[in-house]
Amino acid sequence: MSNNVDIPYKTYLNENEVPEAWYNVRADMKTKPAPLLNPATGNPVTAEEAEHIFCKELVRQELDDTTAYFPIPKEIRDFYRMFRPSPLVRAYFLERALGTPAKIYYKFEGNNTSGSHKLNSAIAQAYYAKEQGLKGVTTETGAGQWGTALSMACAFFNLDCRVYMVKGSYEQKPFRREVMRTYGASVTPSPSMLTEVGRQINAAHPGTTGSLGCAISEAVEDAVSHEGYRYVLGSVLAQVLLHQSIIGLEAKAAMEKLGVKPDVIIGCAGGGSNLGGLIAPFMGEVLRGEADYRFVAIEPASCPSLTRGVYAYDYCDTGKVCPLQKMYTLGHDFIPSANHAGGLRYHGMSATLSELKHQGLMEAKSVKQTDVFAAAQLFARTEGTLPAPESSHAIWGAMQEALECKKTGEEKTILFGLTGTGYFDMTAYQAFNDGTMGDYIPTDDDLAASFAKLPKV
Amino acid sequence: MSNNVDIPYKTYLNENEVPEAWYNVRADMKTKPAPLLNPATGNPVTAEEAEHIFCKELVRQELDDTTAYFPIPKEIRDFYRMFRPSPLVRAYFLERALGTPAKIYYKFEGNNTSGSHKLNSAIAQAYYAKEQGLKGVTTETGAGQWGTALSMACAFFNLDCRVYMVKGSYEQKPFRREVMRTYGASVTPSPSMLTEVGRQINAAHPGTTGSLGCAISEAVEDAVSHEGYRYVLGSVLAQVLLHQSIIGLEAKAAMEKLGVKPDVIIGCAGGGSNLGGLIAPFMGEVLRGEADYRFVAIEPASCPSLTRGVYAYDYCDTGKVCPLQKMYTLGHDFIPSANHAGGLRYHGMSATLSELKHQGLMEAKSVKQTDVFAAAQLFARTEGTLPAPESSHAIWGAMQEALECKKTGEEKTILFGLTGTGYFDMTAYQAFNDGTMGDYIPTDDDLAASFAKLPKV
Repeated sequence: MSNNVDIPYKTYLNENEVPEAWYNVRADMKTKPAPLLNPATGNPVTAEEAEHIFCKELVRQELDDTTAYFPIPKEIRDFYRMFRPSPLVRAYFLERALGTPAKIYYKFEGNNTSGSHKLNSAIAQAYYAKEQGLKGVTTETGAGQWGTALSMACAFFNLDCRVYMVKGSYEQKPFRREVMRTYGASVTPSPSMLTEVGRQINAAHPGTTGSLGCAISEAVEDAVSHEGYRYVLGSVLAQVLLHQSIIGLEAKAAMEKLGVKPDVIIGCAGGGSNLGGLIAPFMGEVLRGEADYRFVAIEPASCPSLTRGVYAYDYCDTGKVCPLQKMYTLGHDFIPSANHAGGLRYHGMSATLSELKHQGLMEAKSVKQTDVFAAAQLFARTEGTLPAPESSHAIWGAMQEALECKKTGEEKTILFGLTGTGYFDMTAYQAFNDGTMGDYIPTDDDLAASFAKLPKV
Repeated sequence: MSNNVDIPYKTYLNENEVPEAWYNVRADMKTKPAPLLNPATGNPVTAEEAEHIFCKELVRQELDDTTAYFPIPKEIRDFYRMFRPSPLVRAYFLERALGTPAKIYYKFEGNNTSGSHKLNSAIAQAYYAKEQGLKGVTTETGAGQWGTALSMACAFFNLDCRVYMVKGSYEQKPFRREVMRTYGASVTPSPSMLTEVGRQINAAHPGTTGSLGCAISEAVEDAVSHEGYRYVLGSVLAQVLLHQSIIGLEAKAAMEKLGVKPDVIIGCAGGGSNLGGLIAPFMGEVLRGEADYRFVAIEPASCPSLTRGVYAYDYCDTGKVCPLQKMYTLGHDFIPSANHAGGLRYHGMSATLSELKHQGLMEAKSVKQTDVFAAAQLFARTEGTLPAPESSHAIWGAMQEALECKKTGEEKTILFGLTGTGYFDMTAYQAFNDGTMGDYIPTDDDLAASFAKLPKV
């Protein structure tokens, strides 16, 4: 069928080969990501301060940038067995369609009902909430992947799950909402009348369809004002990258089993959790001087934090209730266009990835969404799986590398992260199929206006 | 975690352990299923007659009830590698939730974009169409699983795919439609103005939302009136059961690898293809006197062909264009209620399964849809995967067996088929979540009226 018939199409680790500890890439970074700052005091956030909002053990993980490995509790490993190990797939059919001498592999995280890698961190966060004796957790969701994953995780531990879903999505994505309800979560359109901030926004902007920033503020208010609740977040934070390192650890173990080594590792980047997780153990080797890989982040041209943002302290949320973080940012007031990759519409980027990019250890590229969907369509027709719009950014990136190999004749080994499936994104595919999908790229003036509102730290 | 920790949660065969031939259970049946009859002549259908409608090799498979094994062509095995082997899962978490001493296994066919087992036969049928030098194939789809699977298969072989989708589904399930379009299929709401039969029905019933019977008639007319096209069908036929035997062959190989043997094997039954495929090799052992298993078909109480139908020759389609088949049937004019398990809303049943039931080799039970969704919800919350409504019939059946074991203390080994995921069925889940789902069970009078219209053969 292809150039390397002894490599199977899919490689699954055996259950006893699955990693038993997460890897914290910050431990191997000489220059660490800058600390989170308390927006009220401007000082580094303390554990005590953070524990009012977040679960205790998750705060410990968040603030620890020296411990390399965190053992994965048995209960979480048991849950992982439902959908992990995920397959490492050799993209023979895509290679054939591209006519490339490159060898393309992808780590596929979509074979679970949440449809993405989000479940890796959701189950960990739910577990620590349960361990702490909490009654429940609150969160926000935009496109719905994170809310779905958290609902599944909370159902497993019989934990109350309150999801504030951006009202526009709540109304346009009723199916995502129903998946969450099937797992027992309560899903509230945001802004709601359940919180002070929600009531204020509804009064000030009657008929608003909401925003992620508002939903975050509602979820945080709900958590801090109810005994036994904490707020949890599905990306951006170091703790989430830690949990997502399971992706990279499994991918690395599977490639070692096959006796192959990637030349370049590619992922899509929104808040950075999947990319951070995929590259973590490989980056660790680079940081320790043991190996050399290229890392490439692919982001939407409509929301280009890594390629056109500034590296500065900024608010993580528009409501300014969360800590300040030093990161590549487009400004907390930046409103990305209605890009269909909802999971990549974030103004900032993980502090860890930002620092790695800043140190020149990671590249970044941006791509228009129509090019992303063309890549997605080719991938679906050749490799079978209909990819999520977010994941398709990584497909596009891998295709660029593979087509470059076609020109040069190089037989590079490419690894990319296929984070999820697009089954709940068919409105976007319909726009592409109908030829009505547009592209929007912010102007320099747009960005300059947004940068002007960055906090002075 | 459970009573048998040396059994992994998921068992995947290695790629070199995947079966290389399909198994034709009819070869081991002493009394064969009755032959298909030509509705015009009343005589058994000949290959020549059938080849006007169906692909040549598929007709050969359909009419061959003596050859036990059909080698799977390499091109199909290559495609299978994209989503096969599928996992055999030990349902540890469901066992725990039920508190049963039973050991529950399921063969999960939902980890592909079509979301179900349908792809196993779709790729085979597309391959034989391509081999025959055809330009394309036509088919009908109701709920959309089969149409999706066929679209994926045709995209792979660059074959034209024309899907007639029941108009009601076309309008209510736009996402299924868009998946098919993404794979390059043309999807036409049925009844359409493209065919004579469609125009007649539209003229006679303005504003009709269509029916599966009408869509079949349109697809057949399209195929026979265009050079280089044939009609393909996703269930009921013996050829489809043959292709679906890959499910049972893999399940049996995986269980043998684990050193376990099922006591009872359970599947949902609509047209019978997944159940026929799952049980085939096990039934072969029974037929050859080598082993003893119980087999249980679970069907909806709203469409109870095996439990309340008659065993007789009937039309396979309401348009009466397809051959007559001897089967358990509710009558070709029977209109099942709007059960959400669209894949099980068929008036008849595979001739092979019907004959096995008639010989007392297979049991059948029916279940109300509200009970099915309660089982589906428990399964989702414990095992993680949100199941298709169709598949959830089998979950319910497995739970009944497991709860019986709880009463008796027996440690039975239960195997069931989890045919697919419910990601495109959230309207049904919403009705269940909202408590607005109803149950409909046909009266004896309803059935008697339908039986009165059976053809006299």
